[in-house]
Amino acid sequence: MLINQQMVEKAEKLIPSLQSNEVEVQHIIEVIADDAAFQGWSTKQFMKPQEWKKQSYGKGDSFIVDFGDHYVGYVELAIRSVGSPPDAPLKLKLTFGEMPCEIAEPFESYDGWLSSSWLQEELMFVDVLPAEIKLPRRYCFRYIKVEVLDTSVKYKVAFDYINCKAVTSGDMSKVTALPSNLPYDIVEMDRIAIKTLQNCMQTVFEDGPKRDRRLWIGDLRLQAQANYYTIQNYDLVKRCLYLFGGMRLEDGTVGACVFEKPYAHVDDTKLFDYALFFVAVLHDYYKATQDMDTLQELWPIALEQLEIGLSRLDVRGIVTDDSTWWCFTDWHDELNKQASAQAVLIYCLKHGRELAIILGQEEQLKYITENIEFASNASMKYLWDEKAGFFVSGEERQISWASQIWMALAEVLPSTHNSLLLTRLFEDSPSIGMTTPYMYHHLIEALFLVGNKEQAIAEMQAYWGAMMQDGANTFWELYNPKDKKLSPYGSNLINSYCHAWSCTPTYFIRKYLI
Amino acid sequence: MLINQQMVEKAEKLIPSLQSNEVEVQHIIEVIADDAAFQGWSTKQFMKPQEWKKQSYGKGDSFIVDFGDHYVGYVELAIRSVGSPPDAPLKLKLTFGEMPCEIAEPFESYDGWLSSSWLQEELMFVDVLPAEIKLPRRYCFRYIKVEVLDTSVKYKVAFDYINCKAVTSGDMSKVTALPSNLPYDIVEMDRIAIKTLQNCMQTVFEDGPKRDRRLWIGDLRLQAQANYYTIQNYDLVKRCLYLFGGMRLEDGTVGACVFEKPYAHVDDTKLFDYALFFVAVLHDYYKATQDMDTLQELWPIALEQLEIGLSRLDVRGIVTDDSTWWCFTDWHDELNKQASAQAVLIYCLKHGRELAIILGQEEQLKYITENIEFASNASMKYLWDEKAGFFVSGEERQISWASQIWMALAEVLPSTHNSLLLTRLFEDSPSIGMTTPYMYHHLIEALFLVGNKEQAIAEMQAYWGAMMQDGANTFWELYNPKDKKLSPYGSNLINSYCHAWSCTPTYFIRKYLI
Repeated sequence: MLINQQMVEKAEKLIPSLQSNEVEVQHIIEVIADDAAFQGWSTKQFMKPQEWKKQSYGKGDSFIVDFGDHYVGYVELAIRSVGSPPDAPLKLKLTFGEMPCEIAEPFESYDGWLSSSWLQEELMFVDVLPAEIKLPRRYCFRYIKVEVLDTSVKYKVAFDYINCKAVTSGDMSKVTALPSNLPYDIVEMDRIAIKTLQNCMQTVFEDGPKRDRRLWIGDLRLQAQANYYTIQNYDLVKRCLYLFGGMRLEDGTVGACVFEKPYAHVDDTKLFDYALFFVAVLHDYYKATQDMDTLQELWPIALEQLEIGLSRLDVRGIVTDDSTWWCFTDWHDELNKQASAQAVLIYCLKHGRELAIILGQEEQLKYITENIEFASNASMKYLWDEKAGFFVSGEERQISWASQIWMALAEVLPSTHNSLLLTRLFEDSPSIGMTTPYMYHHLIEALFLVGNKEQAIAEMQAYWGAMMQDGANTFWELYNPKDKKLSPYGSNLINSYCHAWSCTPTYFIRKYLI
Repeated sequence: MLINQQMVEKAEKLIPSLQSNEVEVQHIIEVIADDAAFQGWSTKQFMKPQEWKKQSYGKGDSFIVDFGDHYVGYVELAIRSVGSPPDAPLKLKLTFGEMPCEIAEPFESYDGWLSSSWLQEELMFVDVLPAEIKLPRRYCFRYIKVEVLDTSVKYKVAFDYINCKAVTSGDMSKVTALPSNLPYDIVEMDRIAIKTLQNCMQTVFEDGPKRDRRLWIGDLRLQAQANYYTIQNYDLVKRCLYLFGGMRLEDGTVGACVFEKPYAHVDDTKLFDYALFFVAVLHDYYKATQDMDTLQELWPIALEQLEIGLSRLDVRGIVTDDSTWWCFTDWHDELNKQASAQAVLIYCLKHGRELAIILGQEEQLKYITENIEFASNASMKYLWDEKAGFFVSGEERQISWASQIWMALAEVLPSTHNSLLLTRLFEDSPSIGMTTPYMYHHLIEALFLVGNKEQAIAEMQAYWGAMMQDGANTFWELYNPKDKKLSPYGSNLINSYCHAWSCTPTYFIRKYLI
């Protein structure tokens, strides 16, 4: 790893203190199998907290508490015994759910490829009652299922409270109210998007506070954009830029993600597009803050990402597509990433060009400008299929949504043609579609870019609006209206239901609609 | 409850500080199904700790560590990751075993009537690696099975150490060496008995450090006797006497057991024999310490136990046998307790008589003496079956080992007849036998009392010696050489394999053999 200790220390000095907020149980609920509900589960209130506190629970009893909204935080509970003095430990199982599926479907049924250790559960033994217990781990949830696995024949237990100390570094005080003329669904979408962003804002911008609970640069880019229009925590973006800049992979590439504990360290995952996004994040940050010191310090690293990206171009000027790389683009097994990678490279070169201008770096400006031309021309020559009216990707000349969207964002075609490209995309609707809100974000952004504001809003309403109708308290990592249990990990139980890359409706609303 | 706060405070001031001792893993072992071994499980060493520390373990891997002896204490472990940076929590399961059965047989199979929460296991999620973890609960074990339930596809884990901080209030420095002429098996039996006592000596004399982990007066009586000949922690006995004396049941009865946490409190279990033993424990304590202050302060409570016991006598002078009481005597569903209860009452009256003499309480001495006569005469008249040559118990005139043994200890018959009673007992061997080391203790004590020293030693060797041959590191709560999985709780998994009432071989050896 390439460590710049000074940069890492700069990042660590920017660790924010977290705000906390105590939340109580709102309802005791049941989760009910319901074909009409999202993923087949609906919830029903059946007891008020005041009544619940009077209940006593013995071996085999269980209940589900509902905090009424999605929270990230620490759980505290107070348990007392009922009956004879407790003559054996209390054995409890807790299951935390962002969504009803996690409460209703046994975790034992999980067989996805991501670690089952992400499924939030605890087996607890309480040796002494009454007890006030502060669980040491952080959870991400709306619901908790409490199962009393055993007490003894001589006693039961009752719960005086189960509270959540919700935490975030997203201070809402700078978020302005939306104009009153906006429709209710847009106002509500904005609220949920900000809640999503806020719950992902901890000591870094996390991708998902349930899973993976860490800083990914692909998510950071979108979070930072939403943050500039809402919470405006500039230092948190700065901290994340210095974490990525201060700890790179051996060849100089910015890593795809960073861990904070037990000390800051970069993961060994390398993603072609994610590394390049360092340039875009830095440019966005400068535009939002005019922080010239940071720009000057991090510019050499940004420039190096462009050089590394360009080194993947073949003699024609096309990103080499082989088995040795990974460009993320979207969670889609069949998607060929060549064209979108090419577009991301051009997109980031253009961000770099702006930065070179700001910095007055003539030589670098020339280098970048020439390469934009080289890669753009190559794209038109080798990836543009005039007959089909689409960009193709890979040896099999695949036509996908992702390739067109990214090429539109890279503005490889002249402006009017760019708009027509997207119109054609909707008309022809290639079968290689989009699977994540991350990809949908880029579609909406492209529509706004080419001036199709009405369609951008309509698509946003169709996609994020459908999540809302399906009961989202925060926006999700994955959503396919046609396959609501879709998961790239083998099980919807492990999907993240508060996910950074899904927070951008507030960015669109506040940038383009007001 | 009747609380004498001053007595409770006196008890609490006597909370001992615990000695601790760091123990390391001795071997990595396998547990093997083996019909020839105790309960069908033997162990086999297959890796040295140095090698084990070099291994890495992924999802589904497991190993068993052996600490080489039985310990009560706190576990600390150090875990590091091997491979890529850990990108998901580590999910671990720990299973603690005093005996191989607990390691080999899944706890899910347990369906006894005692709480499954006594089975020592933990499900752990480790969010950050490397980690040095101090588990907060106390365990009682020789073996720990470690199952790596999940890591992630990117990393495995290795263990730098798993240590046990063993704790006890039993300081071995006052224990004298046995004379060198004693046979090896007796020396070894003494060592294991003291280890049993020591591991049960915590902030009270616990019955079993795995289960129930608390002060029972029936166990206390035997532990205190063994303690006077070995570890000589007189203050711990004093503390326990004040706990029982300071917190009694509503009618004045000394409770059967006491809990220490979260504050000292007496359980609501009332046992006829256990309450009376308060008198015997006090007498034994006085004989060992000559602590007149304590005797004087606790004597009124002791006397009250005799009065309460006597109040159960019917007009004939026989303990009333109905469905409203519980006299412990032994774990035996078919055993009628009337005769043994009668004998325990006389036995404790006789202890009380000694105390009244020491205290110079003429009137109380007279009262006790008269009642000894009354109850003894009634025993001979209504419970002694001249033809059978045995004491009978209950409406069905049951002849059991327990009734004869306790009547012998109460010395209801003249001295020579007492000896003959025991001889006859072995000859006729009634089918209602003994199930616990607690009952065996009283058999051995009775044999020594009547002067059958050789047989006492032989019986001790046959019973505790067989436990040793079956691999006991500490002596067990339950042992039936003919049914080695016997449990009054429905499963041998929950039996206690280091149990106070099994520690008395050292008392016999040091009182009668040297």
